[in-house]
Amino acid sequence: MDIIKYNVDVNQLYKIRNRLSKYQKSVDEFKSLIYRNIDSIPVIDTTAHDHQDQTHRNAFDICKLKQFDIQQLKNDPEQFLALLFAVVNSCDFSVAAKIVIHFQLFGGSILELGTQQHHQKYFNDINSMKIVGGFAMTEMGHGSNVRQIETTAHYDLKSKEFIINSPTLASTKFWIGNIARYGTHVVLFCKLIFNQEDKGVHGIVVPIRDLETMKVFPGIELGGCGPKLGWNGIDNAWIRFKNYRVPRENLLNKFANISENGEYHTTISSPGKLFQQTISQLVFGRMLYVCGPIFSINYCLNTAIRYAFSRRQFGEKGKKEELIINYPSHYRVLMPMLGTLIAFEFGRDSIIEKLIHSKKYEQDVEETHAVVSGVKALINEYNMTYLNKLRAFCGGNGISSYNLFGYFRSELDIFQTAEGDGSVLYQQLSKFLLSEYKKWYKKEGVTGYIIKEVQTFLSTNPIYTHSRSMPYILSNEFHHHAFLYRFEKYRAIVIEKLSQSKSKGMSFMQGWNDSLLNVIELAKAYTHLFILEQSHLALKKVSDTNSRTLLNDLVKLYALSNIESDFSFYRNWNFISAGKAFAISDAVRDLCVAIKPYSLQILDSSKIDEHRFNIPLAHTDGDYLKHMAERVGIPISKL
Amino acid sequence: MDIIKYNVDVNQLYKIRNRLSKYQKSVDEFKSLIYRNIDSIPVIDTTAHDHQDQTHRNAFDICKLKQFDIQQLKNDPEQFLALLFAVVNSCDFSVAAKIVIHFQLFGGSILELGTQQHHQKYFNDINSMKIVGGFAMTEMGHGSNVRQIETTAHYDLKSKEFIINSPTLASTKFWIGNIARYGTHVVLFCKLIFNQEDKGVHGIVVPIRDLETMKVFPGIELGGCGPKLGWNGIDNAWIRFKNYRVPRENLLNKFANISENGEYHTTISSPGKLFQQTISQLVFGRMLYVCGPIFSINYCLNTAIRYAFSRRQFGEKGKKEELIINYPSHYRVLMPMLGTLIAFEFGRDSIIEKLIHSKKYEQDVEETHAVVSGVKALINEYNMTYLNKLRAFCGGNGISSYNLFGYFRSELDIFQTAEGDGSVLYQQLSKFLLSEYKKWYKKEGVTGYIIKEVQTFLSTNPIYTHSRSMPYILSNEFHHHAFLYRFEKYRAIVIEKLSQSKSKGMSFMQGWNDSLLNVIELAKAYTHLFILEQSHLALKKVSDTNSRTLLNDLVKLYALSNIESDFSFYRNWNFISAGKAFAISDAVRDLCVAIKPYSLQILDSSKIDEHRFNIPLAHTDGDYLKHMAERVGIPISKL
Repeated sequence: MDIIKYNVDVNQLYKIRNRLSKYQKSVDEFKSLIYRNIDSIPVIDTTAHDHQDQTHRNAFDICKLKQFDIQQLKNDPEQFLALLFAVVNSCDFSVAAKIVIHFQLFGGSILELGTQQHHQKYFNDINSMKIVGGFAMTEMGHGSNVRQIETTAHYDLKSKEFIINSPTLASTKFWIGNIARYGTHVVLFCKLIFNQEDKGVHGIVVPIRDLETMKVFPGIELGGCGPKLGWNGIDNAWIRFKNYRVPRENLLNKFANISENGEYHTTISSPGKLFQQTISQLVFGRMLYVCGPIFSINYCLNTAIRYAFSRRQFGEKGKKEELIINYPSHYRVLMPMLGTLIAFEFGRDSIIEKLIHSKKYEQDVEETHAVVSGVKALINEYNMTYLNKLRAFCGGNGISSYNLFGYFRSELDIFQTAEGDGSVLYQQLSKFLLSEYKKWYKKEGVTGYIIKEVQTFLSTNPIYTHSRSMPYILSNEFHHHAFLYRFEKYRAIVIEKLSQSKSKGMSFMQGWNDSLLNVIELAKAYTHLFILEQSHLALKKVSDTNSRTLLNDLVKLYALSNIESDFSFYRNWNFISAGKAFAISDAVRDLCVAIKPYSLQILDSSKIDEHRFNIPLAHTDGDYLKHMAERVGIPISKL
Repeated sequence: MDIIKYNVDVNQLYKIRNRLSKYQKSVDEFKSLIYRNIDSIPVIDTTAHDHQDQTHRNAFDICKLKQFDIQQLKNDPEQFLALLFAVVNSCDFSVAAKIVIHFQLFGGSILELGTQQHHQKYFNDINSMKIVGGFAMTEMGHGSNVRQIETTAHYDLKSKEFIINSPTLASTKFWIGNIARYGTHVVLFCKLIFNQEDKGVHGIVVPIRDLETMKVFPGIELGGCGPKLGWNGIDNAWIRFKNYRVPRENLLNKFANISENGEYHTTISSPGKLFQQTISQLVFGRMLYVCGPIFSINYCLNTAIRYAFSRRQFGEKGKKEELIINYPSHYRVLMPMLGTLIAFEFGRDSIIEKLIHSKKYEQDVEETHAVVSGVKALINEYNMTYLNKLRAFCGGNGISSYNLFGYFRSELDIFQTAEGDGSVLYQQLSKFLLSEYKKWYKKEGVTGYIIKEVQTFLSTNPIYTHSRSMPYILSNEFHHHAFLYRFEKYRAIVIEKLSQSKSKGMSFMQGWNDSLLNVIELAKAYTHLFILEQSHLALKKVSDTNSRTLLNDLVKLYALSNIESDFSFYRNWNFISAGKAFAISDAVRDLCVAIKPYSLQILDSSKIDEHRFNIPLAHTDGDYLKHMAERVGIPISKL
């Protein structure tokens, strides 16, 4: 490869990389309000108790700025997200977490599952944080498998009340955020028992504390869950109920209602579907779990690359020590991460768009939810894996809390398993993919045999397998083909395994579990394909040629380094020859070398406010010695 | 594979897995002293300041138990290590860290680099912790590259004193443990300037605080380094010197001395070699960095597997939910980890033995040090990578600080880069391997060409490549061959690349950096080969047949899962065919399924005291609900 020259327009890049940049003006205004009024930066050395006090104060003060409004979640959810990320970018992470639990999970449940009466009753108090809400779904015995929750609400026809109980230890609501010390209400998810009949999971607004005295109401037992490896600003609680009564009106009754004269009514055919409908209203909340890790990668990658451009270690005798960015052990990891970050951002923006669209037109809802699941699982896994490498790339200085690797790791780790562990989410996506495929081949009248043949043909096409031509290896066409092939291959493998299990007389569940590793790979492969396709689509819309060229090369680096990391798949299925594998590694190296000189400018386009979090290794002047010295009080002026 | 039945003798396994179990009696006595006298368990929710106070108090009280003696480091270093691990297993991690810095780094430097006069002057006060010592090597600008440190000690012939200075900001000593608040002395590593001549890096004992007032002496500026992502019980400091004077006698003068009448004398030929000699005395301290991550894997794997055997989630309709251990997504990770743990333990015990031997007989010193470097780098990388998976396997409960995933991650992360980042240590090992190889083929008169031919032959031998016979795939012979092949292949690649660079006129450094990724792979391949060979050797010595069979299968699982994780290498160099790769994956699966039913017993042989750290998910009764409930105060007796 010849040495490539790029023209970097930082502002253009910023806009292309951020769909939410259209809110830049209101976000900037909000930020300057925060800068003036809120004293909150990442909390790195305090007890959970003090952290919770500070978080509560900060979140309350932010609500006083009157920027967040529960109605945004319906009218302009992107604006809500943009404002939320203004908070994430300028305050300790727990402040945003508290706002998300309060507005999006608690408030959003009332918005989406409740009706007019609930909206009128609660929205003003939610906006001002006069009441503080939690989302009581998870139980000690039941995390990802929400359908199995055991908390019950028996409807008492006479008093027109729900009688709520926690029948077992496993049914104890657990990890319920915002509730251990400050919460006044929860939306409680429980099994509604009506006339001795289990109607499935419903949401009910449950007041838990007296607004005046802040005492927990009788019939409720509640306590803190203890310190955590992150999110310590959030007061997570366990809650138990014993014959605790709430009035009929507290049922969030958009999809199922109990009338005043005691009739249960729903338009939805089964408790299972009601549950699906209930949960699916909350999917936009999952965007936080997609945006969060991308935010973390942005910051930590910025720190590691800037440090690598200023730190020198070892080198030729008699010369200045070498910048560590120039060691392949560094740049062969950092540059592909930069490419991956760009692709993830395109993927994120595309699913924000899809979610908005599917919400508005109620189309493709199921598909969008399935894709969000995969993207959430994949990006969080990536973030946690690579955070560790970035920390180590900064050596001892990576250990200092000031450089925030520990902070990001602690705050983001939870994202991996919250609202569904990766392996569960991948399975949800794979189930969707397989049922879509079944629909398709039934419609087309294609037999399973022919499908397999087509795929086998793909795997042995010698042009694909052997062509080492560098233009072909660098082409988007090849990358797309490789990602598509991987997806289709795993799909074929899973289908074949499942049908084998069936013919052996195994239950579907047994067969599914026997194929589980491939099922998970299928979802991962699809998610990567989705991210790549969305990146390619987004690139087509970029009108600025210079930006398009640069971003396209970054996406190429994502694609090729991903293929490289999965050589065992591609080689075992003979999709590429050994020689081609080596050529791909050469292409990755060349792209890294080409992009390296521009990486600081690319990072500039992330527009991180270097002064707010004051990360010593991440300042644009590259003078990490000075900034570390300042943080720890070395009197540099006297040197 | 048929279903295998193992006979597990927990006590036998314990002894085989722990070379240091020979000290069991004195360790148990020490532990019961600690249980009675020291109130210290993992600190999970406090400020760095309070954590430091507690750590200092605990370490001081442990010294009062009179079990640690600086002379052990020479007379019976294994005993020191065994006692240290009694502390690690029963106290907050920082307590052991403080003892290591004080005894092993500070005391050990005086022991190994000093002479009789220093021993007499300091040892009693070190043993009682009347003085508290630090190890002042790292500077702000210089971590792994110690030779470039800038702190100077000019020898003043007239006053017979060293005049110590920190000439630049980068020369500020940084991260110096034990010193910010409690330290009284450091061993300072600095460039000795004698008669305007730079004599290289020397160690000098430097008093920093008045023992009575605890005030820092004039001429020294010192402050804390701020909060860290781990080791917050250790008071790390920066220190600067300005014309600070210490007497001639404080030079640690075993290898280089200044006589009273002002003559510098050393028996070692160059400052570079003196530096090597100085540093190499401290290598036994690196054992902590090998034992630490194995300790972490033991605890965290124990927690994750025990939880997986008690937690149920999802499953067949109408049946009890399934134990999560029975999902391949779980056991295909957990069982190979168990095998890898066993192999790592064999590797660890072997290098303890080698270190003792090389110390005693001054043989194979260089080789042993090189191997320790590789093992330290590899095991720490593995530990940090897999800790993340284990945490996520425990879902929301993995987030609770009580289950100690956050604790282990925070305390162990530092090991990855302390005393040399992995990529630096791997390079040291590869340099050693290449120079050994050069010696060998010069001696044998073999040309580079022939060496390459031999290796090319290996790679295409069809029996090795294609044989899918399960007995062969499961044989130790095949595993050894695969590991050896990988090592030799990377060696050949590196040699070829280096000689190509040379013929292109590149400097050695340029060529080396161009080959850096392969250089690092070479060291990793050798380290795995070393661990496998030592495991096979150790297995041969196991007299109990049942234990040998079980442990051998665990080592097989390590080997095969390692090969599986490196299919891209083995396939790209055509060492195995695609069909064989799939057969290897089948073998891994079968071994996992075979070992799974015995894994709890295998964990029993780790002899973790479940009551001391009281990890809710890790109790042997498997009742995690009860133990979590107890920790967070749910009144279970009333349910």
